[in-house]
Amino acid sequence: MESLYVIKIGGNVIDDDALLSVFLRKFAALNSNKILVHGGGKLATRLAEKLGIPQQLIDGRRITDAETLKVVTMVYAGYINKIIVADLQSLKCNAIGITGADGNSILAHKRENSNIDYGYAGDIDLVNAEWFKKLLETGIAIVASSITHDGKNQLLNTNADTIAQEIAKSLCLFYEVTLIFGFEKSGVLMNIEDENSFVKNLESDQYKKLKESKKIFAGMIPKLDNAFAAVSHGVFKVIIGKGEELDRLITGESGTTIIHE
Amino acid sequence: MESLYVIKIGGNVIDDDALLSVFLRKFAALNSNKILVHGGGKLATRLAEKLGIPQQLIDGRRITDAETLKVVTMVYAGYINKIIVADLQSLKCNAIGITGADGNSILAHKRENSNIDYGYAGDIDLVNAEWFKKLLETGIAIVASSITHDGKNQLLNTNADTIAQEIAKSLCLFYEVTLIFGFEKSGVLMNIEDENSFVKNLESDQYKKLKESKKIFAGMIPKLDNAFAAVSHGVFKVIIGKGEELDRLITGESGTTIIHE
Repeated sequence: MESLYVIKIGGNVIDDDALLSVFLRKFAALNSNKILVHGGGKLATRLAEKLGIPQQLIDGRRITDAETLKVVTMVYAGYINKIIVADLQSLKCNAIGITGADGNSILAHKRENSNIDYGYAGDIDLVNAEWFKKLLETGIAIVASSITHDGKNQLLNTNADTIAQEIAKSLCLFYEVTLIFGFEKSGVLMNIEDENSFVKNLESDQYKKLKESKKIFAGMIPKLDNAFAAVSHGVFKVIIGKGEELDRLITGESGTTIIHE
Repeated sequence: MESLYVIKIGGNVIDDDALLSVFLRKFAALNSNKILVHGGGKLATRLAEKLGIPQQLIDGRRITDAETLKVVTMVYAGYINKIIVADLQSLKCNAIGITGADGNSILAHKRENSNIDYGYAGDIDLVNAEWFKKLLETGIAIVASSITHDGKNQLLNTNADTIAQEIAKSLCLFYEVTLIFGFEKSGVLMNIEDENSFVKNLESDQYKKLKESKKIFAGMIPKLDNAFAAVSHGVFKVIIGKGEELDRLITGESGTTIIHE
């Protein structure tokens, strides 16, 4: 089985030109099938502010009203996606930028919730794994922005972590998939003040204990729950760490690695 | 040789939701290899205004400074490209949206001109015809926004008519190409006041005479010069008319058709 890397980068890399450039050089140099998934960082918030579109967050999630959907589509699928693709091309890494509407690659539905109206937020129903495979077989890297669609002419704003995870899970049929979640920390830290305190390998028993002893902070829990869910669904390996250290995440010198036991 | 339609739509269709919807239904129903090329209409101008970015036009061409490039990338490659793709998917027409950076499909260089600084405006050097062919062979429709790149990490704003024409010319190697330029008139009109006065077929001798007698107005001349250049470079047929009448343009009931003599 060939290898595939599905790599999600967060706002901390997207918002920082120097970090983004470091990351993209390492991504371009990675000799494997590869998919990059990105959201939008602070640019969308800043553009919405400039346009006088009030932004509402509930539990850290953006409420995507119709005007905000336009903004995130412009910023994620337009500006950020295309500057990444142009940068990769200049590094001789052939790449194509997509949303879930392109090639009907990711189908989602508008989130229904009796308590909170998230607006045009999408929950994923289906990843068109065959289509991703065909595209990867042409030797191109895929750059996916965090916009999906419902197949009924509605674009939907979708969590980039979830997109990366669903792509990784669905492509396990064809590849040995390593899923990498880039974020602002070196990995799962035992001491939040110390970037060198990251756990190199995390097993589910250990994770349970760390959760019980409240050693793992709130924001990490959904990330790690997702990581364990991914490996139990066939993903070969999940690595959590700093996107800009991509090479060292892959060699295991940095980041926290989670493998199916 | 299989047929390929390269269809450019203008601002009059993009800016009008009803016309765009009519056009896309006809495009979706077209049973052939097909590529849609679009610019951005008034949306980019309006967004730039809202953001306080002054817009300068010289001879009808937008001067693309760095901030304006961001705006057109967001609007053309982001918003408009993706609402078109999502709409086509809902019509069961599988489509993928691209810029010239995606797949390294269209290479251009920043326009050099001793008199006028057009900013980040691109003149096309190369269309990657093999790549377009490979993608078309998967049965997908391609939706190209009018953004290209220089291969050195610079996106460039590029005239949509020129993109359509260069794609059409380069794909003549593999397909019998019909190039359609959609605009606000029914075709080449003999009487500018009368939409029914369009010439059905225009030959080069007749065109020369119409130019000499000043029967053809200024804006039409570059369009028609391009059309005659395209057919002399191997394009099977060029049709000029209303994009929203796509079906009737193809049957010859509407629009002006130019064929190589």
